[in-house]
Amino acid sequence: MSEGPLEHLIRLFSGLPGLGNRSARRIALHLLERRGNVMMPLANALSDAAENVKSCSRCGNLDLGDTCRICKDERRDQSQICVVAQVSDVWAIERTAAYKGQYFVLGGLLSALDGIGPEDLRIDKLVERVREEGGAGALKEVILALSATVDGQSTAHYISDYISPLGVTVSHLAHGVPVGGELDYLDDGTIVTALNSRK
Amino acid sequence: MSEGPLEHLIRLFSGLPGLGNRSARRIALHLLERRGNVMMPLANALSDAAENVKSCSRCGNLDLGDTCRICKDERRDQSQICVVAQVSDVWAIERTAAYKGQYFVLGGLLSALDGIGPEDLRIDKLVERVREEGGAGALKEVILALSATVDGQSTAHYISDYISPLGVTVSHLAHGVPVGGELDYLDDGTIVTALNSRK
Repeated sequence: MSEGPLEHLIRLFSGLPGLGNRSARRIALHLLERRGNVMMPLANALSDAAENVKSCSRCGNLDLGDTCRICKDERRDQSQICVVAQVSDVWAIERTAAYKGQYFVLGGLLSALDGIGPEDLRIDKLVERVREEGGAGALKEVILALSATVDGQSTAHYISDYISPLGVTVSHLAHGVPVGGELDYLDDGTIVTALNSRK
Repeated sequence: MSEGPLEHLIRLFSGLPGLGNRSARRIALHLLERRGNVMMPLANALSDAAENVKSCSRCGNLDLGDTCRICKDERRDQSQICVVAQVSDVWAIERTAAYKGQYFVLGGLLSALDGIGPEDLRIDKLVERVREEGGAGALKEVILALSATVDGQSTAHYISDYISPLGVTVSHLAHGVPVGGELDYLDDGTIVTALNSRK
């Protein structure tokens, strides 16, 4: 028997991250009970976003148009670039409202296991941008906000090697005890780092 | 700032069952990285299913057209109707391939707490169908395949009261130890029921 529209929909949903067959069936039924006010708006929102949301040519963030609203915003500090792996990291930092500089999205992390090399990331573009803006004196600091994992730290190391000679300060996120974290539940590595970085 | 297409998409996803803000953002990013081969097909599958998938006028199952493929299938046993709460229950029973009769989807369970009364379910239609098909001699048995919860059992009781006088056998799913279940992990109620129903 050929696949009907319902089975097709469930198969597509079950391929999304975090969803399996059971949750995909549940979502499909939920939608079919709410065709007018959820299902059709979702279909339209998908086409709309697929057509109109673009990757910013300057920083790699997702937004309407060729340049994202963060790059366009002239009130933001042009002397800092925060380098992150994914667009979701930009969103996470923006939610804190604690950072007012620029961003640069690498599009992933170097990973020997997954076969992701420097040519798969936007490292060339970052180095080029730092050379231009740092040379013009506008850029002072590059903040490497990458995960505290092996891949994150080796990516940070790789980027540091290219950027440090260009005359800008390269900084990293501090490692330590998460705010609200209990010592008893922390891994040894974090405790040792927090001890060694004590102030 | 007004809501952009990306924020709109994430908000719609986060309202689906089992998804929250974080998983909705993750799905939206996953889709935007795969516009052509996942995102647009998903948008089309949603419109397609919303327009073409209908509730079967006879049993309440979801399928193309006015009558579902199970009701149309003449090889299936016309002497049994399996009464279930949701369309997903039909799918669960069909996956076992152990049942070859007809179905009837109630559209929910009676629930005093949620304010769901007999008029909110398709109980009238079920009684009417049992009266017609039972009177004609075609229907012999109504299987109440409802959850072993308070709501499921009170719904089964309510339906039994209406159907038993109509001259058809009314049966229930057996209660007992799930296949593969370990006694040590079962609740007391299941063990007592399994003991009392021992064969």
